[in-house]
Amino acid sequence: MAAPSTIPSSTDVRPPRDRMVRAAAKLFRVHGVTATGLREIVEAADAPRGSLQHYFPGGKEQLITEALQYAGDRAGRHVERLLAGLEQPTPGTLFAAMAGEWRDLYLRAGFAEGCPLAAAATDTVAESPGVRAALSDALWRWQRPLEAALGQLGVAVARRSSLAVLMMSALEGALILARSREDTSIIDTVIAELRPVLDAAGN
Amino acid sequence: MAAPSTIPSSTDVRPPRDRMVRAAAKLFRVHGVTATGLREIVEAADAPRGSLQHYFPGGKEQLITEALQYAGDRAGRHVERLLAGLEQPTPGTLFAAMAGEWRDLYLRAGFAEGCPLAAAATDTVAESPGVRAALSDALWRWQRPLEAALGQLGVAVARRSSLAVLMMSALEGALILARSREDTSIIDTVIAELRPVLDAAGN
Repeated sequence: MAAPSTIPSSTDVRPPRDRMVRAAAKLFRVHGVTATGLREIVEAADAPRGSLQHYFPGGKEQLITEALQYAGDRAGRHVERLLAGLEQPTPGTLFAAMAGEWRDLYLRAGFAEGCPLAAAATDTVAESPGVRAALSDALWRWQRPLEAALGQLGVAVARRSSLAVLMMSALEGALILARSREDTSIIDTVIAELRPVLDAAGN
Repeated sequence: MAAPSTIPSSTDVRPPRDRMVRAAAKLFRVHGVTATGLREIVEAADAPRGSLQHYFPGGKEQLITEALQYAGDRAGRHVERLLAGLEQPTPGTLFAAMAGEWRDLYLRAGFAEGCPLAAAATDTVAESPGVRAALSDALWRWQRPLEAALGQLGVAVARRSSLAVLMMSALEGALILARSREDTSIIDTVIAELRPVLDAAGN
């Protein structure tokens, strides 16, 4: 997942529909899905009351689905941006950049936020086939650009998927431990342990 | 986390208090924390109505706290049991056994359950300092026996903590991905990728 916060604000000039999707994803990062109310999303998006029904006739499930897609796309774009900015581009430095953004967020702003995909996966909403499909799709929106990035970094085709899964898993789990302990050293430890492994698969 | 299910049943002869703690941990695995109601816990524990207030005067937060402690202790005991049963005891086979139990659970019973600690960490309840402290404590109840096991497997003192954090992170994240995709190959991939790394740290 991409770390930087997506707080919608009243100066956000995006259409209300987009603001609601972003606000939902943001609130899921902090509170999880079940604990996030629809009214809270509308308020955080600074959207007109009653607009939720207009834009999301499928209700909260539709909004959850679109928020997860948005989060997956955002994570995927973020991988591409991080890759482009690496001084020494290797699989290990890419992972360090991905995980390091979360460490920086936690050091700057505390441990309130996590990955909205993890929040949805551990929530009762994942029992809905629609939400589960959206979750899977969102993870692919993150994984495909990650695999492409690993390809650019010289990882053989046969390893790209495995390494992407390892990177995503280790990052998701590290966020859970780091938030639980309010301790960013968890993230640094996982970076330090995985970096040589990942770099050994690069060119 | 330990994988096997802890479904309390009406034939469970434990005291009602214990049954409620176990039922809470079990329901958190499936539904997350916010979505799990107190009445649901009492019913799953087959406990007398009104006994919740009697045994847990601190309400849901007290029950959450004790359920997390229970889950952490259980995970710790599970590490010890798995270590004792390994045919070829190495850090990599220990991780394979820990993660493999979840794969077997998912293949046997579907993807309903996850780690209750991850569920609490991504839930709004983690904003409570008491719950957050219980979460951190529960993770230590898992990590300390894991570090001790790594010591028995020949991992140098200086690496035990790092490898334990890597193993816990990778497992927690793999469960999130596996449940989201209803795909146990995620778990096998993470085992295959980490096993050589972990074994290189053993003796």
